[in-house]
Amino acid sequence: MKKEETILQKGNNFSEWYNEILKRAEILDVRYPVKGVYVWYPYGYKLRNLIYTILRSLMDKEHEEAQFPLLIPKDELMKEKEHIKGFEEEVFWVTKGGSTELDVPLALRPTSETAIYPVFKVWIRSHRDLPLRIYQIVNTFRYETKHTRPLIRLREITSFKEAHTAHASQMDAVEQIKKAVALYKNFFDLLAIPYVITRRPEWDKFPGAEYSIAFDTLMPDGKTMQIATIHLLGESFARTFDIKYEDKDGSPKYVNQTCYGISERCVAAVISVHGEEHGLVLPPEVAPIQVVIVPIVYSSEGAEVEKVCFAVYEELKRAGVRVFFDNSDERPGAKYYKWEMKGVPLRIEVGPRDVRNNRCEFIKRNDFTRMQVPLGDVVPEVKETLKAIQDCVHERAKETFFANIYKSGDSGVGKDKSEGEMEELRRRGIVSIFLCESERCGREVEERLGVNVLGEVIYGAGGENEEKEKSEGKCMICSRKAKRVYIARAY
Amino acid sequence: MKKEETILQKGNNFSEWYNEILKRAEILDVRYPVKGVYVWYPYGYKLRNLIYTILRSLMDKEHEEAQFPLLIPKDELMKEKEHIKGFEEEVFWVTKGGSTELDVPLALRPTSETAIYPVFKVWIRSHRDLPLRIYQIVNTFRYETKHTRPLIRLREITSFKEAHTAHASQMDAVEQIKKAVALYKNFFDLLAIPYVITRRPEWDKFPGAEYSIAFDTLMPDGKTMQIATIHLLGESFARTFDIKYEDKDGSPKYVNQTCYGISERCVAAVISVHGEEHGLVLPPEVAPIQVVIVPIVYSSEGAEVEKVCFAVYEELKRAGVRVFFDNSDERPGAKYYKWEMKGVPLRIEVGPRDVRNNRCEFIKRNDFTRMQVPLGDVVPEVKETLKAIQDCVHERAKETFFANIYKSGDSGVGKDKSEGEMEELRRRGIVSIFLCESERCGREVEERLGVNVLGEVIYGAGGENEEKEKSEGKCMICSRKAKRVYIARAY
Repeated sequence: MKKEETILQKGNNFSEWYNEILKRAEILDVRYPVKGVYVWYPYGYKLRNLIYTILRSLMDKEHEEAQFPLLIPKDELMKEKEHIKGFEEEVFWVTKGGSTELDVPLALRPTSETAIYPVFKVWIRSHRDLPLRIYQIVNTFRYETKHTRPLIRLREITSFKEAHTAHASQMDAVEQIKKAVALYKNFFDLLAIPYVITRRPEWDKFPGAEYSIAFDTLMPDGKTMQIATIHLLGESFARTFDIKYEDKDGSPKYVNQTCYGISERCVAAVISVHGEEHGLVLPPEVAPIQVVIVPIVYSSEGAEVEKVCFAVYEELKRAGVRVFFDNSDERPGAKYYKWEMKGVPLRIEVGPRDVRNNRCEFIKRNDFTRMQVPLGDVVPEVKETLKAIQDCVHERAKETFFANIYKSGDSGVGKDKSEGEMEELRRRGIVSIFLCESERCGREVEERLGVNVLGEVIYGAGGENEEKEKSEGKCMICSRKAKRVYIARAY
Repeated sequence: MKKEETILQKGNNFSEWYNEILKRAEILDVRYPVKGVYVWYPYGYKLRNLIYTILRSLMDKEHEEAQFPLLIPKDELMKEKEHIKGFEEEVFWVTKGGSTELDVPLALRPTSETAIYPVFKVWIRSHRDLPLRIYQIVNTFRYETKHTRPLIRLREITSFKEAHTAHASQMDAVEQIKKAVALYKNFFDLLAIPYVITRRPEWDKFPGAEYSIAFDTLMPDGKTMQIATIHLLGESFARTFDIKYEDKDGSPKYVNQTCYGISERCVAAVISVHGEEHGLVLPPEVAPIQVVIVPIVYSSEGAEVEKVCFAVYEELKRAGVRVFFDNSDERPGAKYYKWEMKGVPLRIEVGPRDVRNNRCEFIKRNDFTRMQVPLGDVVPEVKETLKAIQDCVHERAKETFFANIYKSGDSGVGKDKSEGEMEELRRRGIVSIFLCESERCGREVEERLGVNVLGEVIYGAGGENEEKEKSEGKCMICSRKAKRVYIARAY
């Protein structure tokens, strides 16, 4: 194995690192002959499935999974004017069946409001039908004209989890928004992915929503990536699609709605946030293989080593650990390379000397530390070590993340700031500034600094209290009263 | 609850029964404004998920799950001539992105050979890469111009499980065909669905295959429904897509391929084969709710009854049973109706007298028999009863099924047969006749009897031995040497 093959550069050129790791760890194959669509390798798909199993189990507590069609008739898609304005240049159109021109063109769903809400109209009759909380995990499509990138900017989003809820009142809907925020926090915590939560500026909210809340994480190149969004839709779609319920007093009322979604960007986040120059570093919670057992066989003692490895394998499997016994013909070095690349959290080595001493060796993927473990203690030690790795990976990710959130001075960095200072802000990860709510000031900051306004801080470097803790100051552009917002270069 | 609402007619008008049950049991909503596409209700989707969880667990033993794109460029789809001939009038075409005409139209996959095999070409290098066995569960599309029907004849097949394998030799591929047959038998046995297996006639095989094997079950109206297909592709796709491997001796060779698939027709089969006039009858293996607990509350003893119900619920839940405690305000009769309609295999009733006697009552959905069970024995009794119901449902389905497979006399029902006899054959479920392999004779039988030739019998009324047991006779049309084939009116 040549040295240059084993080391991936992460910091300097994230794009290259990312593409290499998708290939070498066998997550996605990019060699499909359509722009912006990719092939999930079996290993990548296992990772995807484990992540979505967690998401499903969280969703299933208060939502029901359903499934709605991919194809949306043009007239339905066009009903909600604000909504379609946001999507019309991104929609793929099916116009032919066989050699027949279709009467009504069919859109591939870019998102499913207009597929689902006509059905909500017939499902919802009375206040007893509320709240209605459903979700689906489906493929959605965007005709992206910008540079596409696997898992991040796609033409076929293969794994869009979208939830849609309907409530009797705006108060109930806002309550649901809070629950959704809590659920997503829980989800990303399990993936060991740090995040900030902001309320997107007016001009960047979901088309048709009253407001949008978003989760962003930080990629290794200092750009943020939006990994979840939550929208209060209010009555806008209910009015368009005529979704009414009969209230307790018999009067008809419009439902109040929310929707919130997560795509396979959550997989991209796990790969990018935790990975390093040796490959993936997977949190044990989502690792397709949590433990790999590698026999170190030099001599005539091979049979005995194999036997011990196999016993350890059987024991771990029975204990519910996702374990793989690599007894292939490859040399140990090649095996280390392979399983490190694939991010297996824990490697167990067994050599002849270990067998004689009735022990084995643990090597942790996250920091390469080694420890000797008596064979009799393997199961409890593995469980404890996996837990420790999960925590460590999370802690390290949070450290890096929060170290890259900067607070600019309260006086703002307005027009008087030097170009050097401006450049400094732009270069940094996420920067907290004071900015008023006007689109003019927002756009000016975006343009001058070459960043995006993520929005008003809901959860950030200061935790839940970020907002309260000196949340008001003077707008860095116009000096009027302003709230703390995050800005960053964003994917 | 009015009487006429509770009873569904199954035998007389299967179509009506089927549509009613999909609605009342909340499996699929057909009120979506595009022909041939439907909405999965949460309850239906749970049933679907349980069925596909079984399928996945069987597949995962020797296959790996992956995922390939929905969109197939026109030139790739058109490469395999035989293949595209079979599909070209059924393909939906994406021709526009936003307002831009696409350079190359993109097909929505009708099946994924042409999406997957260009990737197999780059995945397979050496004999060490073989066998390659992957599968995916995805939505596929057919522009059906015939009458569409939920779960059976669709424009969006939401849940197509397709497996694709590549092997070093035809012998290995044929071996895989046998494994696939065994796997599918196992799967349908778990769904309690009886089947015959035939080798489809030459003129009805999968476009591009050397031969096709199919599973058919029998619907209540006497028509067969194809529920699984297995194809030996040989080298035809390998030659088209240039999929070669380096053999042990260093020489390049084409791989030999198979593919096999199952769609949501497996859900249609579970509904149609087992259901009756009171609604669904779900085999416990796939029932979203295996046990429903209904408190019978008349009096002041309500609190005590609720307490016992809840204790039983908790105990069953801990034991891994999918149990639901229906403590809603509806009257017991309404609850019975609802859960019978949804096919819950076992109902447990608890009334004040039961509480006083420390017992509860079991009512089996499949035959409505009742039994009293001491509260202390609930868990083991539930497990045993669910197992018994599973077996019973399977036995009853097999009885009906095999009673509807008829053997015509060895002399055939050729041109000399009276019209009455011909009509009799046509009317029956599956009929075993002797028919030679020529398309001319096959087409004549199909035309004269108004049936389909399912094909040469591999597994049928005589079990595995069907074929051996007098498998040769004289063709009913031309009197030449012929094999036993099944004919039936088919969906």
